[in-house]
Amino acid sequence: MSGAVEWIAVDWGTSTLRAWGIGEGGSLLWQVQSDRGMGTLAPGAFETAFLELIIPQVGDDEEPLDVIACGMVGARQGWAEAAYRPVPCRPLDPALIRAPTLSPRLGFRIVGGLCQHRPADVMRGEETQVAGFLSLNPAFDGVICLPGTHTKWVHISAGEVVSFQTCMTGDLFAAISRHTVLRHSVITEDWNETAFSEAVSDTVSRPERLAAKLFSLRAEGLLDGLAPGTARARLSGLLIGAELASARPYWLGQDLAIVGARGLSKLYASALSGLGVTATIADGDGMVLKGLAAARALSAEYNS
Amino acid sequence: MSGAVEWIAVDWGTSTLRAWGIGEGGSLLWQVQSDRGMGTLAPGAFETAFLELIIPQVGDDEEPLDVIACGMVGARQGWAEAAYRPVPCRPLDPALIRAPTLSPRLGFRIVGGLCQHRPADVMRGEETQVAGFLSLNPAFDGVICLPGTHTKWVHISAGEVVSFQTCMTGDLFAAISRHTVLRHSVITEDWNETAFSEAVSDTVSRPERLAAKLFSLRAEGLLDGLAPGTARARLSGLLIGAELASARPYWLGQDLAIVGARGLSKLYASALSGLGVTATIADGDGMVLKGLAAARALSAEYNS
Repeated sequence: MSGAVEWIAVDWGTSTLRAWGIGEGGSLLWQVQSDRGMGTLAPGAFETAFLELIIPQVGDDEEPLDVIACGMVGARQGWAEAAYRPVPCRPLDPALIRAPTLSPRLGFRIVGGLCQHRPADVMRGEETQVAGFLSLNPAFDGVICLPGTHTKWVHISAGEVVSFQTCMTGDLFAAISRHTVLRHSVITEDWNETAFSEAVSDTVSRPERLAAKLFSLRAEGLLDGLAPGTARARLSGLLIGAELASARPYWLGQDLAIVGARGLSKLYASALSGLGVTATIADGDGMVLKGLAAARALSAEYNS
Repeated sequence: MSGAVEWIAVDWGTSTLRAWGIGEGGSLLWQVQSDRGMGTLAPGAFETAFLELIIPQVGDDEEPLDVIACGMVGARQGWAEAAYRPVPCRPLDPALIRAPTLSPRLGFRIVGGLCQHRPADVMRGEETQVAGFLSLNPAFDGVICLPGTHTKWVHISAGEVVSFQTCMTGDLFAAISRHTVLRHSVITEDWNETAFSEAVSDTVSRPERLAAKLFSLRAEGLLDGLAPGTARARLSGLLIGAELASARPYWLGQDLAIVGARGLSKLYASALSGLGVTATIADGDGMVLKGLAAARALSAEYNS
């Protein structure tokens, strides 16, 4: 229990719900998470799922709970729809969406996502990380790469999101390594960094070869005993290489920052470094918290 | 029951076992199939699975059963391993592999697959269809495309397989349309031929854009209500386009035949036609039967 919680920061994605108790001066008091992501919840089940997770931290009393959330909780199938705003625009809208609640103590507000019409694209959650990064680097002009299941490449200029592009590389890697014939070839936690780098650079320079390279992982396993760690790294390199080929305008000659989980950020930094591109890395969770704090401050200013 | 069965033709793949009773003069007497593919069977279970399928057709007596089989039944995890032969070589080896049997009446022989060392590649089953096609078109010099879960592109010259390339396009389509975020966008049996053709030609001419195009199917669904039939056709076009980009040396300026199931063959023919390439289509099952008959005749000649 902690009576000192000033507000609660929430990142509620498709598969995971995470909450942080924030005290005076922005101090982090506690962190909790559950697997009750948006994808697992019926429309009416969000409030209960949320309260069950945080009551053990904040106590079951009458104290108001001020919550700022981002992510898929604001999708059409989420708790309350926070409409996409079209780019170009600032990453945060000062007007947050208030979710309907039964508990009178709960004030649950949601940050809206961004959309782009041509080419069509959407994001939910990453706009908050972008805002967090910009709150620390207000003069940043360049591209922020947010690696994940659906990696986002976000072009920033003058504090606005100008354009962005999503590549579903993590989603593809999971589907291919679990649900195709390659599942036999990549079962391992091993990793061959050289195989990764070569596959990235081959695919960036010859993207038309991708489709022929995939099955060769299986064939080399059968014929030459290709090590699973090499096959896994090469598969990852082929897919990240295809992503980098498609995102070239986002990294070529740009000031580049990577915001994400540590391992994945290092993987992208390594792939980019093989192409002669150096990127700054910033912690994804840290940027979520900074971004939610920025959204709360902006909303207070707007409503005052 | 039919006493007139001269031999039994078998195509035993990863997921399906199919058998045809062949009578005098090559007449087709019956056809049966089961889902007891190689992938579902333990090493000792092949003979029982096979006999259970065909005894209702041939009767439970002492008559010898002469069987010629192709496909994954000859893999290392199959009934008996029929080693890969390296290309360049003729599609069929006169020496067939005899599977060990408990039943004294059963003579079960397996056609071996082909392999290629650089780039590494393997096939099992398609060599028999290639042989079937060549038995009808002995002077064919060009490329045979065999579309399927793992599509093969096979370069034929002077009756030999010179080189080949596998693209796992069908496997990718199934994994992506069932196990990624795109599963929400492509649930339908509808089809938009224009969307398919455009996606093929876009991807063949700009293969580096593939990774960015995939997520746009989801985004266009959310933002613009993209019809599922359009999304499904476009996903198929993107993946077949990536395959055609990687297989360009196999179709550009080549005499081209497509051997496979009717629907899939027409899909590939349509994709190729958009690139100005005309292909002959031959029925996949027919070519399996012709190829197995050719293997049997070749073996008889070799052993005489």
